[in-house]
Amino acid sequence: MTSNPFEPGAARPQAMDGAFSFEEVALANRNSGALLETLGQDITPTGTHYLLNHFDVPLIDEAVHVLSFGGAFDAPFSLTLAELRALPLITRPVTLECAGNGRAGVTPRCFSMPWMYEAVGTSQWTGTLLAPLLERAKPQAGVQDFAFIGADFGFDKGQPHFFGRSLTPDQIAELEVMLVWGMNDAPLLPQHGAPLRIIVPGWYGMASVKWLTRIEALTQRYQGFQQVQTYRYRANAEDPGRPVTTMRVKSLMKPPGVPDWVTRQRWMQEGAVTIEGRAWSGGGAAIQSVEVWTGEAWHQAELTGRQDHYAWTGWRFDWHPKPGVYDLACRATDANGQVQPLEAPFDLAGFANNAVHRVRLYVVEKP
Amino acid sequence: MTSNPFEPGAARPQAMDGAFSFEEVALANRNSGALLETLGQDITPTGTHYLLNHFDVPLIDEAVHVLSFGGAFDAPFSLTLAELRALPLITRPVTLECAGNGRAGVTPRCFSMPWMYEAVGTSQWTGTLLAPLLERAKPQAGVQDFAFIGADFGFDKGQPHFFGRSLTPDQIAELEVMLVWGMNDAPLLPQHGAPLRIIVPGWYGMASVKWLTRIEALTQRYQGFQQVQTYRYRANAEDPGRPVTTMRVKSLMKPPGVPDWVTRQRWMQEGAVTIEGRAWSGGGAAIQSVEVWTGEAWHQAELTGRQDHYAWTGWRFDWHPKPGVYDLACRATDANGQVQPLEAPFDLAGFANNAVHRVRLYVVEKP
Repeated sequence: MTSNPFEPGAARPQAMDGAFSFEEVALANRNSGALLETLGQDITPTGTHYLLNHFDVPLIDEAVHVLSFGGAFDAPFSLTLAELRALPLITRPVTLECAGNGRAGVTPRCFSMPWMYEAVGTSQWTGTLLAPLLERAKPQAGVQDFAFIGADFGFDKGQPHFFGRSLTPDQIAELEVMLVWGMNDAPLLPQHGAPLRIIVPGWYGMASVKWLTRIEALTQRYQGFQQVQTYRYRANAEDPGRPVTTMRVKSLMKPPGVPDWVTRQRWMQEGAVTIEGRAWSGGGAAIQSVEVWTGEAWHQAELTGRQDHYAWTGWRFDWHPKPGVYDLACRATDANGQVQPLEAPFDLAGFANNAVHRVRLYVVEKP
Repeated sequence: MTSNPFEPGAARPQAMDGAFSFEEVALANRNSGALLETLGQDITPTGTHYLLNHFDVPLIDEAVHVLSFGGAFDAPFSLTLAELRALPLITRPVTLECAGNGRAGVTPRCFSMPWMYEAVGTSQWTGTLLAPLLERAKPQAGVQDFAFIGADFGFDKGQPHFFGRSLTPDQIAELEVMLVWGMNDAPLLPQHGAPLRIIVPGWYGMASVKWLTRIEALTQRYQGFQQVQTYRYRANAEDPGRPVTTMRVKSLMKPPGVPDWVTRQRWMQEGAVTIEGRAWSGGGAAIQSVEVWTGEAWHQAELTGRQDHYAWTGWRFDWHPKPGVYDLACRATDANGQVQPLEAPFDLAGFANNAVHRVRLYVVEKP
């Protein structure tokens, strides 16, 4: 038989606008989203941070795991986890969002993981800064890319590969990339990249390679599948596209009231209620304002601050609705003047849909 | 407006046989399944145990949480977490499976959480036995049910309720029900019922009430929504049904080879491979055999044992396939002679589908 059953068009079902396919639901069952009711908190509870894993989670023995620096370095070396832990420690909360978050809201829909709103989270990440280690390995003149290669292997569009991504020397100088082995004051969990991953603050999650085994200095641009063939904004199938990098401005609300099990629509008795949530933007841009739509106007929410340059911002809005049906929404604006759109921006792969979060709420009279 | 927007037929979309609805996918994004690649392990890694939560996860301060024993007890009392922790400790691994696991494979499909295979897991649960505490509260003569009430509240089929379930005195005497506050040697996580839940070993997961606030002794049968209106096997809409209780015999395999990102079909080069996985049955029934289908015959797998009466059993089968396409399956038989069916048994709500696990594998020549 052919050595590659996973070529495009072979085993891959087609996208559908309305109804979702069996394969999309299998991905949704496997990958897990945040619980929106935790959006009142700065730190996403352990075990509820979103997960998007392309291939199988590797179960790696950290006692024998080694990170190697190779390729165009003059002083390549390797480090065990014990050696990494002896380096200067940092812990910081960083908000990560999947580039595919919101995909299910984009029309026509790309066939992939059908995220709605929930692929975002903020954890306390513990590790060390990457840049000093790259310097120690002495990149040769002419290095154009540092490639980060994970232990996870599989096929996408017929191409077998280890998950890998790259950053340029300029990007390394600008971004405070971390090598990470701890999460929320505990060891990194297997499904989040144990024993070692990177965190690229301010960028969508695809850059934060998990199960990191190798960092390679390259004197040409990295050509890995996940770098050049996906995670690109494309208008159509012929468009070569441009890379997905920093997160777009976005906000989510903790849905008020209580849910209906199946529809997740909300219900409350009339009375005072605080609408609260979190807002973030890419590249460390501060959130300038969050507005809440209650059906007749946008209301300014109060910003309650952020724990870190790269962490989301809390917000709240006190409200006293009369009985009625409300289609609530929240909308953030960042310090660069970027504002969330009301409708999903189109992208061929459904990347970076930062349209406003909408929640239907039924407010009823007190008995 | 009406005080209840969530009556049947109002906000609830209809079931569809083939394609999945937006609401089903939203449930799949929110509830999370096991990662099948961890099925080589006795204990499901922390943070990957399946989650099925009907309503919002309550975030409860354990310092002020109290469990109260009320209703038809002669010596009702309350316990704080500190008082519970001073009781005789037990830790045991128990396999839990969602009653709706496999629902997406049942035709016609019920409109609810569209599980395929992944709603199962085994954790080390730490707590104390419930029965001595019920005795201490001195149930009155004529008690017919003990109701277990959680802090999670919402609507289902138009009916607002706290999630609650009950067990009869006979069931309490037979089952080794635990009050639990620890999971895998760590505090119970919010999404798994912190600070306190019960574990009903051998039963489907709906019985293991999370966020437990109250145990009530009743001199009549408990009539809570989740006890009498759902979690019943029903042939059709008129069927009053019979309660879902113990888990049916079932097995899952760790899919061999590596995956295609979207279809999750598998690929490997020819050579020796061990097919392994886990098998379990309800009520503590031992697994008698597991067979692996490789396309031409069922092969006996080796059973590698279980850690506990109520934990799943490991199994493995050494195989050396030639190049080709294989539709693998695994099938367990328990000590009661119950065997997994090849096709999904019908149930109106899609409960307890224990049909065999099927995996497509492409084996290719070595280059």
